[in-house]
Amino acid sequence: MNTNPTACLIIIGNEILSGRTQDKNLAYLATFLNEQGIALSEVRVIPDVEKRIVDTVNECRAMFDYVFTTGGIGPTHDDITTVCVAKAFGVDVIRHPEAERRLLAHYKPEEVNAARMKMADIPVGASLIDNPVSTAPGFVLGNVHVMAGVPRIMQAMLDFLRPQLKGGKPTLSRTLEINQAEGKMAAGVTVVQQRFPEVEIGIYPMIKDGKLACSVVLRSTDEAALNDCYDAMMELVKESGAELLATGN
Amino acid sequence: MNTNPTACLIIIGNEILSGRTQDKNLAYLATFLNEQGIALSEVRVIPDVEKRIVDTVNECRAMFDYVFTTGGIGPTHDDITTVCVAKAFGVDVIRHPEAERRLLAHYKPEEVNAARMKMADIPVGASLIDNPVSTAPGFVLGNVHVMAGVPRIMQAMLDFLRPQLKGGKPTLSRTLEINQAEGKMAAGVTVVQQRFPEVEIGIYPMIKDGKLACSVVLRSTDEAALNDCYDAMMELVKESGAELLATGN
Repeated sequence: MNTNPTACLIIIGNEILSGRTQDKNLAYLATFLNEQGIALSEVRVIPDVEKRIVDTVNECRAMFDYVFTTGGIGPTHDDITTVCVAKAFGVDVIRHPEAERRLLAHYKPEEVNAARMKMADIPVGASLIDNPVSTAPGFVLGNVHVMAGVPRIMQAMLDFLRPQLKGGKPTLSRTLEINQAEGKMAAGVTVVQQRFPEVEIGIYPMIKDGKLACSVVLRSTDEAALNDCYDAMMELVKESGAELLATGN
Repeated sequence: MNTNPTACLIIIGNEILSGRTQDKNLAYLATFLNEQGIALSEVRVIPDVEKRIVDTVNECRAMFDYVFTTGGIGPTHDDITTVCVAKAFGVDVIRHPEAERRLLAHYKPEEVNAARMKMADIPVGASLIDNPVSTAPGFVLGNVHVMAGVPRIMQAMLDFLRPQLKGGKPTLSRTLEINQAEGKMAAGVTVVQQRFPEVEIGIYPMIKDGKLACSVVLRSTDEAALNDCYDAMMELVKESGAELLATGN
């Protein structure tokens, strides 16, 4: 069993839900967290609506060890994440002196306006997440990590957060591509899965050279079990008369 | 206010959460539902874990008018969506005669096996969703629509479902790209938003020719309000001395 800490990503933004914008943060965060030994265990995409943000943050911070949010911390009227997270925790939002100092240093005097300075408003008790790209910080409140939605900024914020995140062992993976439909491999793989409960085995259908094939993905934090499971899978492929098309991580 | 029926998409699959596979169904479903006058209001990505699937289905079917799930209805050990949805509704799973007939007609006799026939197991009381691509059906139980995760199959299943879905008016959209940072436009757009509460206005930062710009997206089911709001935005652009870079839907 994978006993690593769990994480939930809350993607806040109408533009993702409407299908106009394709999210690029999920896969990046999943890989990043895995390197820290933290399992991304759920993702939610919700609209820029106060009640939905407050309720989702409260539900998820109780369910998971870490919560990450992306989106809604910019200068415009639809950027309401900060106030909503504060409301979820029952704290006020204040003009954060350090965030204010950074923004005033970043903008030319004629560029300073109320909308932009709103990005210095941070919930009481939160610590800042540095933003080396465009200055306006994210913040950490309890186990909730509030980040920008722009992928380049989110990635820089994760670099900043890395030393603060305490995880277990990274999940390792090994993959086999087999020239058989998943329905043919199913029974054999079920037996292998039963022998190796500490390995999570996924089978996914694919088309290779116009023919049904499948990809078997083995994932575990236990390297020895992973390798033994891989050997058992190789054995199964041989016995079933299937052909191994490729292997990888 | 948009009073269209709401929908939630539950994406079931470790391969999306691990970041190995990029989901392609969200944007397609969002656009499809919008054409039916149904608002995609939340998306959840959850792992192939029984309790998580059961709890999520039960929470979401109470919260939203329509629930759609993708993934986990194939022949292998990690395909557990059908049993979990049945458990969520407190009903049994039975070998569905029509589904069985279709699968037996689809496979050559030597290809028939227990794993594949498992795809004919359907919760009591559910109706089938046709699968013209690979035969194995999805199903509808209450307001929950259980579909395959393979995009081509999910899309065909949505075509089948289209006549059953009752929605309101489609949400229309108009977009303006402006050569100003969103922080400069923020105050003016807030005023426009207050004048047109029936239009949802989103502002998103972008880089155009190396300079900060923004994209303003107006969305509404009310065409007249949408057009008036668009005119107000054009007025704002003119007054602010900004340049309109592009317009669209």
